[in-house]
Amino acid sequence: MLGNFTYCNPTRLYFGKEAMQGLEKELPKYGENVLLVYGGGSIKKNGIYDQVVAALKACGKKVFEDAGVMPNPTVEKLHEGVERARAAKADLILAVGGGSVCDYAKAVSVSVHCDEEPWEKYYIRFEEPTCEIVPVGCVLTMVGTGSEMNGGSVITNHAQKLKIGHVFGTEVFPKFSILNPEFTFTLPKYQMIAGFYDIMSHILEQYLSGTDDNTSDYIMEGMLRSLIHSAPIAVKDPTNYEARSNIMWTATWALNTLVAMGKDTDWEVHMLGQAVGAHTDATHGMTLAAVSMPYYRYIMPYGLAKFVRYAVNVWGVDLSGKTDEAVAAEGLDRMEAWMRSLGLVMNLTELGVKEDMIDGLVKSTLVMEGGYKVLTPEEIAQIFRASL
Amino acid sequence: MLGNFTYCNPTRLYFGKEAMQGLEKELPKYGENVLLVYGGGSIKKNGIYDQVVAALKACGKKVFEDAGVMPNPTVEKLHEGVERARAAKADLILAVGGGSVCDYAKAVSVSVHCDEEPWEKYYIRFEEPTCEIVPVGCVLTMVGTGSEMNGGSVITNHAQKLKIGHVFGTEVFPKFSILNPEFTFTLPKYQMIAGFYDIMSHILEQYLSGTDDNTSDYIMEGMLRSLIHSAPIAVKDPTNYEARSNIMWTATWALNTLVAMGKDTDWEVHMLGQAVGAHTDATHGMTLAAVSMPYYRYIMPYGLAKFVRYAVNVWGVDLSGKTDEAVAAEGLDRMEAWMRSLGLVMNLTELGVKEDMIDGLVKSTLVMEGGYKVLTPEEIAQIFRASL
Repeated sequence: MLGNFTYCNPTRLYFGKEAMQGLEKELPKYGENVLLVYGGGSIKKNGIYDQVVAALKACGKKVFEDAGVMPNPTVEKLHEGVERARAAKADLILAVGGGSVCDYAKAVSVSVHCDEEPWEKYYIRFEEPTCEIVPVGCVLTMVGTGSEMNGGSVITNHAQKLKIGHVFGTEVFPKFSILNPEFTFTLPKYQMIAGFYDIMSHILEQYLSGTDDNTSDYIMEGMLRSLIHSAPIAVKDPTNYEARSNIMWTATWALNTLVAMGKDTDWEVHMLGQAVGAHTDATHGMTLAAVSMPYYRYIMPYGLAKFVRYAVNVWGVDLSGKTDEAVAAEGLDRMEAWMRSLGLVMNLTELGVKEDMIDGLVKSTLVMEGGYKVLTPEEIAQIFRASL
Repeated sequence: MLGNFTYCNPTRLYFGKEAMQGLEKELPKYGENVLLVYGGGSIKKNGIYDQVVAALKACGKKVFEDAGVMPNPTVEKLHEGVERARAAKADLILAVGGGSVCDYAKAVSVSVHCDEEPWEKYYIRFEEPTCEIVPVGCVLTMVGTGSEMNGGSVITNHAQKLKIGHVFGTEVFPKFSILNPEFTFTLPKYQMIAGFYDIMSHILEQYLSGTDDNTSDYIMEGMLRSLIHSAPIAVKDPTNYEARSNIMWTATWALNTLVAMGKDTDWEVHMLGQAVGAHTDATHGMTLAAVSMPYYRYIMPYGLAKFVRYAVNVWGVDLSGKTDEAVAAEGLDRMEAWMRSLGLVMNLTELGVKEDMIDGLVKSTLVMEGGYKVLTPEEIAQIFRASL
């Protein structure tokens, strides 16, 4: 049953091989000072940087740069970005990169005109912005987080061993996003498949929760089937436009708030993964992959009916002559096989986690209440140990 | 493969039993003169009119009325509405009703400040508005058209025997829509199931086109399965909130432009149905139901692979030991059985069409090019005859 909700998603998307034409349609809407935000410089090698700067120049913009956004953007980097945006008197923050760069751009956008410490205000107290927000646009070069069409922004505080996401309201959503699947072709395989599993996890964490019948679950089964079909094609041939474009579009809709409307959601896998990220700085999608199977196998008995539905409708498991437990387990086995076939990291050891770090990981893990089982610290430790 | 597209849908939705609270959040954003548009007066019997007027008064609005919008809104009514909106100096047009009332409100909204004849400008020449557009809000009382979150607006010209839809851009989309599933409970069964089939047709006309692999097809399979599951529950118990809320949400997403992005779409069933509507004034969803099976059985050989996929993924047809043609036909047989079980009108005779009207219907039918077969006039006549 769909509960009460308000839905609005104002982000304008330009999708396809010609998506960059959208940038020149959008830029004239904003003032002349543009803060160009990007990561480690791969966009200079693959030509995307040149295309973006050419569009900015063509539209008469003054370009200020904020490079070096890391995969897990830190509080220290956020402070630096705020200073740069202030110095530039930025009228627009243009994020060119993956989810980390987009997340970071949003964090800067709500902090430029804010006197308070942003980590405390947004990531500890989860307050909404009370100041002017600098508009953000995105040119996406990596697929997974959905940050291109939502208010999500994850920041890491290594001193406090915390990696926390704030889901801001629509006024913080990117005003526009440029989605050219070809821009994702040169991404290394490790990052590509980590992004694919991030998408999978976004859908599953909204799907594997609640016991009601609702439209969103059917839509998510479709998204999962599309992803399961396209991901191996992309792994085999990263320049397969059909597969990459489908995955890009699935990623956007997996986390643009649509499928969560009116229903329960879990997000405990993200909390477990983010704890790992805070302690190891590992790639986000891999932290999710490494903890998922132990987590889902642990909570499966508490949400058995939905796990059976998942096995049948998503993985095509045949019901006949089996117990519900056997059907659900077979679905999870097929999921694990699919994950292994893509080459995902299936254990925490490979990400640098050791047994003696588990107490610290447990302390860094937020406990969510929307899943089939609200975990105790002992259960969290048990799942981490099973993930080693 | 997903082609190039731009996607933006700015409509704000308030959904659920408490959705009317959204109206009082939205009204203060607009000026004081509100043109309240509605249909035959059922909203006065079921109490919705009183709730809406109370909210308008509470927000200090001057209320002007434009009642009597018919199920297939006419050009003559549109002229009348434009005069009323001008006299009221309307700052907001508030549509309370089903898709016809919303469609009509949009037609008025783009015509109030326009000097040209709206029928000619928008429905014959398909031009975009070049004048100020009066904002539109919707309170939905019937589910099906998706008009609450798109730019669609269908107007009927009986003199010319034409019923034509213009799909306007985002600036004509409703600014907000109030979606309370309970507001649909008192709708007579005939209108309710006609709306259900309108949803089905919207999804199918976007799904049964194209030969590529794309995410939208998977999402639509999910929507279809949800609708196929929920519709019989709603027919048996129209006050089943779970079923009605799922159907309402499916209807919105079936035609808010999402699932059409980057892919081919057909819409010939709507063209056939709208021709019937122009000649008979029959209920929209029933005109679609009456022509669908002959149409789909006729085009099935031209899009066989997709019809096989439809049979398997949506209707659960078992592939083993059957030809593709047999699988596809079995899917359509199951679809027909489902339609009959709901009580839909399955022939044009019941809607008042006679053999000697077919030449006229053919002349009123627009020919679309996105489906599996571009129909000749002879084929259109053949499908109409098979639908009698």
